[in-house]
Amino acid sequence: MTMIILLNSHSPHYLQIYHHIKNEIISKKLQTNDKLPSIRTLAKFLNISTTPVELAYQLLLSEGFVESRPRAGYFVQKIPEPYTRLEIKREEKPPSTSTYPTRDESKYPYDFHISKIDRSVFPIGTWKKLYSEAMADENFELDYGNPQGEEGLRLEIANYLHRFRGVLCSPDQIVLAGDQSFLIFILSSLLQKNFQELAIENPGYLLVPSLFRRMGYTILPLSLDNEGINIDQLEESGSRLVVTTPSYQFPTGIVMSLDRRLALLEWASNTNGYIIEDDYDGEFRYYGEPLPTLQGLMPNSNVIYLGGFSQVLAPAISIHYMVLPENLLEDYHRLRIELMLEQSASRMQQKTLQMFIEKEYLAKHVRKMRQLYKEKHDKLLLSLDKHLNEKVRVVGRDAGFHILIKVHDSRTADELVTLAKDAGVRVINAAYFWSKPVEASPTIMIGFAGIELDLIEDGIKTLASAWYSQ
Amino acid sequence: MTMIILLNSHSPHYLQIYHHIKNEIISKKLQTNDKLPSIRTLAKFLNISTTPVELAYQLLLSEGFVESRPRAGYFVQKIPEPYTRLEIKREEKPPSTSTYPTRDESKYPYDFHISKIDRSVFPIGTWKKLYSEAMADENFELDYGNPQGEEGLRLEIANYLHRFRGVLCSPDQIVLAGDQSFLIFILSSLLQKNFQELAIENPGYLLVPSLFRRMGYTILPLSLDNEGINIDQLEESGSRLVVTTPSYQFPTGIVMSLDRRLALLEWASNTNGYIIEDDYDGEFRYYGEPLPTLQGLMPNSNVIYLGGFSQVLAPAISIHYMVLPENLLEDYHRLRIELMLEQSASRMQQKTLQMFIEKEYLAKHVRKMRQLYKEKHDKLLLSLDKHLNEKVRVVGRDAGFHILIKVHDSRTADELVTLAKDAGVRVINAAYFWSKPVEASPTIMIGFAGIELDLIEDGIKTLASAWYSQ
Repeated sequence: MTMIILLNSHSPHYLQIYHHIKNEIISKKLQTNDKLPSIRTLAKFLNISTTPVELAYQLLLSEGFVESRPRAGYFVQKIPEPYTRLEIKREEKPPSTSTYPTRDESKYPYDFHISKIDRSVFPIGTWKKLYSEAMADENFELDYGNPQGEEGLRLEIANYLHRFRGVLCSPDQIVLAGDQSFLIFILSSLLQKNFQELAIENPGYLLVPSLFRRMGYTILPLSLDNEGINIDQLEESGSRLVVTTPSYQFPTGIVMSLDRRLALLEWASNTNGYIIEDDYDGEFRYYGEPLPTLQGLMPNSNVIYLGGFSQVLAPAISIHYMVLPENLLEDYHRLRIELMLEQSASRMQQKTLQMFIEKEYLAKHVRKMRQLYKEKHDKLLLSLDKHLNEKVRVVGRDAGFHILIKVHDSRTADELVTLAKDAGVRVINAAYFWSKPVEASPTIMIGFAGIELDLIEDGIKTLASAWYSQ
Repeated sequence: MTMIILLNSHSPHYLQIYHHIKNEIISKKLQTNDKLPSIRTLAKFLNISTTPVELAYQLLLSEGFVESRPRAGYFVQKIPEPYTRLEIKREEKPPSTSTYPTRDESKYPYDFHISKIDRSVFPIGTWKKLYSEAMADENFELDYGNPQGEEGLRLEIANYLHRFRGVLCSPDQIVLAGDQSFLIFILSSLLQKNFQELAIENPGYLLVPSLFRRMGYTILPLSLDNEGINIDQLEESGSRLVVTTPSYQFPTGIVMSLDRRLALLEWASNTNGYIIEDDYDGEFRYYGEPLPTLQGLMPNSNVIYLGGFSQVLAPAISIHYMVLPENLLEDYHRLRIELMLEQSASRMQQKTLQMFIEKEYLAKHVRKMRQLYKEKHDKLLLSLDKHLNEKVRVVGRDAGFHILIKVHDSRTADELVTLAKDAGVRVINAAYFWSKPVEASPTIMIGFAGIELDLIEDGIKTLASAWYSQ
């Protein structure tokens, strides 16, 4: 056989040799059982040391392209199976070799998923423009930024929170991250030395407790009444740490009463405990006066406030934050230094968001979204009333991005969800969010933020006939 | 007093009342000790229920703008101090009230910091253009994406790693995140059930061990010889988990020999342990053949490969990854579901990076950077030889973004760093990276990636005279 390899100085010799031979094998110019030149011969021929050739052969061996036969030399093998999987043409869809459960990515004609957003409302043009402006600024740095998040953005968030949520904090109290889980990891680490238990709402959003459980905390579910979390149970539990969603309890939609809010703050003050206030959709209340956040009711109290821009703008922004009470700041900075934490939210995204808030685009956007989501919310209630009136009872409403319905039905919630799915309607079994015991009658969550306004009634009509027409 | 409040329907009444009164106080139209109308009077005047007025007053009370005097009513207070801090004009620089240690952000005339990058090389125009293209694509979604990272980007990374680092993996094995710490958190959680100890290089990079320590692992420092990590010590330690930087040991610059690499892989196979290979600067070797990565030498072995785009592109990109061996994938997905993990790297950034790799900009960029950094590296060595020749010994060189020098001096490294700082030169005391015992003679790290080529010689000259001219 002849082998012509022209070595250049742009990439390591061993890689060039390796790639050349590999390509010859893949393109079948070298066939199974063809013998390769010996290491010494090839090195001599290329006028280089034997090391790169040895390395190239090593790599080909380790990947199964060639085999070494004792006292005979190196021989071409069949193209190894795992390798063919890697050589994917970019035009093709990446292979779905994964056998692990992933998000249900199927397209539904009527998608009432709870964490979808309405793409058509997002101001793509403005966002792109601001991003370009941010990057063009000569003072914009590409190095590691402030590990806590850029000061400029934290200032804008402090102002925004004050204006829209009545939250009172200084930028120093705000910690940013690319996702909420990492903030929860930081928080659970911070509190670890003084707390071993976390009380949660039952039902409730599971992200916070699942991470705290993994970090060694005991999770204590508390029941709810129509004013919010049960304070007696909280006191009995002995926990000094609780997580709650007062503005629109997830998933029931209960709004925590002012009395209950004040009682909870009093509890935190008496026990020297902390309240984790998850205000994921606080901006969105369609009827009635929104109540002040726990953080805003008593700004120097022990409230840790969680928020982010996934709901208010789009999940793809990937910027979340927590507002720490001042008495946790020293521990936070100690932990940050101990763990050498860097910021996970891109500075490019941070700067863009900063300008987006500064220039009042966010305020405008929230108002627009609130109006649109109110229309969707109303249309959904109307449609339920029209097509499923006697079959369901609406539990949570008037805020957020979903409503909850109890279905008067002997079938299970899973059966109902499957029937809906088969008819092209995505809804969710709310039982997923109950720690214990699960509600007797099937409870279903219907998200309205992501679906187009004009599809809502058809979707509910389709749902009704999927459940009751046969 | 008269109070005219025009209520609109765009925002909650209580907030409008609250803002109005607050502004009257801040602008001194309402003075300290002025009496506010009673809740009932104001509600009647505005023709609304008492609840919003009550809430507004509650908020003003809680923020200290007004006080409630029993049987007398509500009275204006002095503007509360924490509040004045919040009301920062956007034109001003945000206040640096923080008393916590932060990164040294001072500007140095000669900045040899180890984690700076050369901004002038970053292809800002291309990046901006691709970002805009990504956002303009109608199929680009703004919802939550694949929690593991987008498939398209993971495919590009697999191809890139294969081509530039000889790493052999499928996109399914790659996990993305906005920062390395979160990947390390995931990894330490994954391994927790079977491992309690982590062996590390001493000296070494501290990020991985500090997070593992926090997650309850015992950290076992191992010494290095000129071929790399000490395998005998590793075996004696009893640990089945080790983290290493074979391509350019951090901070010594030792390149792990091929024999040592193979021995390490054999160790992992014999003990059923794992090697965490931190290849943070593997693309950058200026002289001699780069050796294959541990992952690439034996692709189906127990190697966890860590990489990212901070060094190769810019920290502001905020995309890092790890390549898991196939035998950890099931546990990864189980953990991901348990913790409800979402992706922390923005989809917008991910899509832009995907296109950046696809269109060969990354390959081009790496070649350009390698050339530029080689020039800087050479210039630095030359300058040291010229100005500090007899005073220092260069330990690590020929790769990466820094070199290490041992200074023949009776002063401490901290004293030398301070002298340099006073002369406008930033260098780092390498002792920071030693677990125990610290080197006898002062050892200094000099980064060359971030500083301009033309400043290097002046910088070293300034350093020499700061240390030796007096």
